[in-house]
Amino acid sequence: MAVKLQSIPQQRVTGSRHNPMAEPPPVSLYYATRHARRCSRDGAPPLGERTRSVATMSLSSHDHAFVPPHRLLMGPGPSMVHARVLHALSQPLVGHLDPIFLNLMNTIQASLRTLFRTENEFTIALPGTGSAGMEAVIANLIEPGDRAIVGVNGVFGSRLATMIERSGGIPLRIEAPWGQIISLDAVHDALSRGGPVKAVVLVHAETSTGAWQPLEDVGALCRAHGALLIIDAVTSLGGLPVEVDAWGIDACYSGTQKCVSCPPGLAPLTVSPRAMEAVRQRRTPCHSWYLDLSLIAEYWNDRSRAYHHTAPISMLYGLHEALRLIHEEGLPPRFIRHQLNSDALLAGLEPLGLQPLPPAAHRLPMLNCVTLPEGIDDTLVRTQLLQDHGIEIGGGLGPLRGRVWRIGLMGESCQQAHVLTLLNALEDIFAQHGWLDQPGRAVQAAVETYTQSQLSARRGA
Amino acid sequence: MAVKLQSIPQQRVTGSRHNPMAEPPPVSLYYATRHARRCSRDGAPPLGERTRSVATMSLSSHDHAFVPPHRLLMGPGPSMVHARVLHALSQPLVGHLDPIFLNLMNTIQASLRTLFRTENEFTIALPGTGSAGMEAVIANLIEPGDRAIVGVNGVFGSRLATMIERSGGIPLRIEAPWGQIISLDAVHDALSRGGPVKAVVLVHAETSTGAWQPLEDVGALCRAHGALLIIDAVTSLGGLPVEVDAWGIDACYSGTQKCVSCPPGLAPLTVSPRAMEAVRQRRTPCHSWYLDLSLIAEYWNDRSRAYHHTAPISMLYGLHEALRLIHEEGLPPRFIRHQLNSDALLAGLEPLGLQPLPPAAHRLPMLNCVTLPEGIDDTLVRTQLLQDHGIEIGGGLGPLRGRVWRIGLMGESCQQAHVLTLLNALEDIFAQHGWLDQPGRAVQAAVETYTQSQLSARRGA
Repeated sequence: MAVKLQSIPQQRVTGSRHNPMAEPPPVSLYYATRHARRCSRDGAPPLGERTRSVATMSLSSHDHAFVPPHRLLMGPGPSMVHARVLHALSQPLVGHLDPIFLNLMNTIQASLRTLFRTENEFTIALPGTGSAGMEAVIANLIEPGDRAIVGVNGVFGSRLATMIERSGGIPLRIEAPWGQIISLDAVHDALSRGGPVKAVVLVHAETSTGAWQPLEDVGALCRAHGALLIIDAVTSLGGLPVEVDAWGIDACYSGTQKCVSCPPGLAPLTVSPRAMEAVRQRRTPCHSWYLDLSLIAEYWNDRSRAYHHTAPISMLYGLHEALRLIHEEGLPPRFIRHQLNSDALLAGLEPLGLQPLPPAAHRLPMLNCVTLPEGIDDTLVRTQLLQDHGIEIGGGLGPLRGRVWRIGLMGESCQQAHVLTLLNALEDIFAQHGWLDQPGRAVQAAVETYTQSQLSARRGA
Repeated sequence: MAVKLQSIPQQRVTGSRHNPMAEPPPVSLYYATRHARRCSRDGAPPLGERTRSVATMSLSSHDHAFVPPHRLLMGPGPSMVHARVLHALSQPLVGHLDPIFLNLMNTIQASLRTLFRTENEFTIALPGTGSAGMEAVIANLIEPGDRAIVGVNGVFGSRLATMIERSGGIPLRIEAPWGQIISLDAVHDALSRGGPVKAVVLVHAETSTGAWQPLEDVGALCRAHGALLIIDAVTSLGGLPVEVDAWGIDACYSGTQKCVSCPPGLAPLTVSPRAMEAVRQRRTPCHSWYLDLSLIAEYWNDRSRAYHHTAPISMLYGLHEALRLIHEEGLPPRFIRHQLNSDALLAGLEPLGLQPLPPAAHRLPMLNCVTLPEGIDDTLVRTQLLQDHGIEIGGGLGPLRGRVWRIGLMGESCQQAHVLTLLNALEDIFAQHGWLDQPGRAVQAAVETYTQSQLSARRGA
């Protein structure tokens, strides 16, 4: 082995883009010779387009390493990611069929079951964002001609109705004003109107409006009418109780970039045995091969492990660590943390004239949708927050554009320090534009909320 | 602000799972009180299932942080990932609509265009694995009733035919034995048989067989017959020339975990203006909303930026850095590196009795598919490689199961040191089982290949 090795790192350093006048690496002659030899030996045409193109290939201009600025992420997602999760993402790869990785998949499944509060065997993370979770559920459970009741009170209910149509289904829309919930009575009426209904589809946490949809009693109603219950828990999972088994939910999907506080790119998903049976009994194959749950089930099933796709290994490292953080904190303390910080935030926003859009009984703690008072410039404030303070909050979507802000308190983003920092920054900006006479009251109101919670905790202890 | 703050980190440490006898955090009383107050104020039913469930919630058993073992990844993917890419993955998040992130998306697009050798405006990374790229192209370009010629000479050609069927299309299969290529004549015959053909679909690098499909002259043939040319470049991109514009390819997708050497989870994709026109002229909406290219185009387009999904931010950080490494090395040196290491590997495998499956003119450098001699125990060797040496190579799929190994030399995995390490380990194992009389010849044959390339480089210089 006393050979002078071909030095790849050296080529990187002396490559033609760094030093355009340098000669091309002499080893390129080897490539040309190798291909000429191969072609002549096999009677193939001499060096063709394939080899010519290598010689004339140009390279793009050299850009720099990306160094992200510090951001306080208080929008509708992504949320901030704990350093332990970021570290997990940076671990070297193992193969996606390595026994050690398959064991990690099993652990993730168990951990997701605890989070979804379910014993469903099919509890996995799909290789796509929350919208992939939505599409997987609809494309597998809604067949051509199937009727599905869908609550439409924001962007994501509308998206669900679209997906039902694209799967060949017939969406039976229950509409409610943006910011309101879908009433149990309306679901009951829709189910009782006659004709088979394959599924009832509701959004637990409508990210576009901040409305918190009650779900406790829908499952029984669906079962009484032979319908499946499909729940969008993209924004709620990890920040609110999501009781898949207790509430009789048949399919529930989420995303990783909200209250789970892992980067975007995976869709946690759980499907009940009765819904999996519906998938297996389909009259026609699912249009989607990539999201075909019957195939994906065979991949995540430890007894079969039939190859389907290459699992997103690094993202699953990250999800595993994010789930560990969730379970170390414990679900009840985590939900309490979300509620308390939301209460403090809303208390602080009140002196600024920002009122929550949804009614008091149905406000999401992790997505605080507040209406802007007259005279406040939406874009100006959000731009200043981002540029001067490094804080991201969300604007309104669709009919709420320019009329609301959506302030996220999700997972790692949901911290007392962040609430106070945001309120202080808003007071600064409002005062600067003459929209506020007495700065300080917003932060003070939030602080009082935290104080009160400490006092009542001490009284209770 | 002289308030005793609620300490989240402390809750993590003292949570009930770590210390099951500890009292629940007293602040939970705050949550119960808050919800009782809210319910009574709004006339909603008193504390219901939602709140009860919080109190009775159980937590899963505590698992450990995942520390991956060191692996030499020499299978069909994932390949190894450079430390700079792993570092990029661990950077803190910014929002997916942050101007700084949108700028990064533009940079990635430019960098992907250089890699795909195209000027296609629609050149992006899809939020899914390589199979999502395959599905996106088929689901958007093949409408119900469309006829598509598809080369089937391995697993991925078969998968393409399945996807064409699921999109309502009619696959016209050109079959070839596994390990062989699809001949230009066969494509010509299929196109000339009469009846409109929407697309010709070929796999550039068939990962299941190691066959390298020539593509230089297919594009002109397709254009002459009014058909689109769709190419699967999952395994070839970054390791072989992929000349999208010069070869007249209309849609070309890849994966990140092969020769791009980024973790799995993204699908680089480029689509020609003429194929995008076909997408926009569809008679029916694409079944898939998640992979609808007309919607995704509006998100990646810097002039519109219409919200579609939340981009997989960390994965795109990683892809950006992986592309920088590719362009720093330069495409020609990178392709030469793949060819040289493959030549050395095959030279080394010969004394072990392992012969390449595809004919000499059509062997992929990054996926070396070699047939096992009689008497070699496939599973035993691969298990020993993984357990004793930490080396992963791939087994055969479908009809090739137990008959071949698939040895990957992709991106960062494609290094002289890895070739020699693998050959040495194979010699050890073969000798241990009495399958080899003279250990050392495999490594020596590979070393001679490297020496020869150095000599011819010196002669040329």
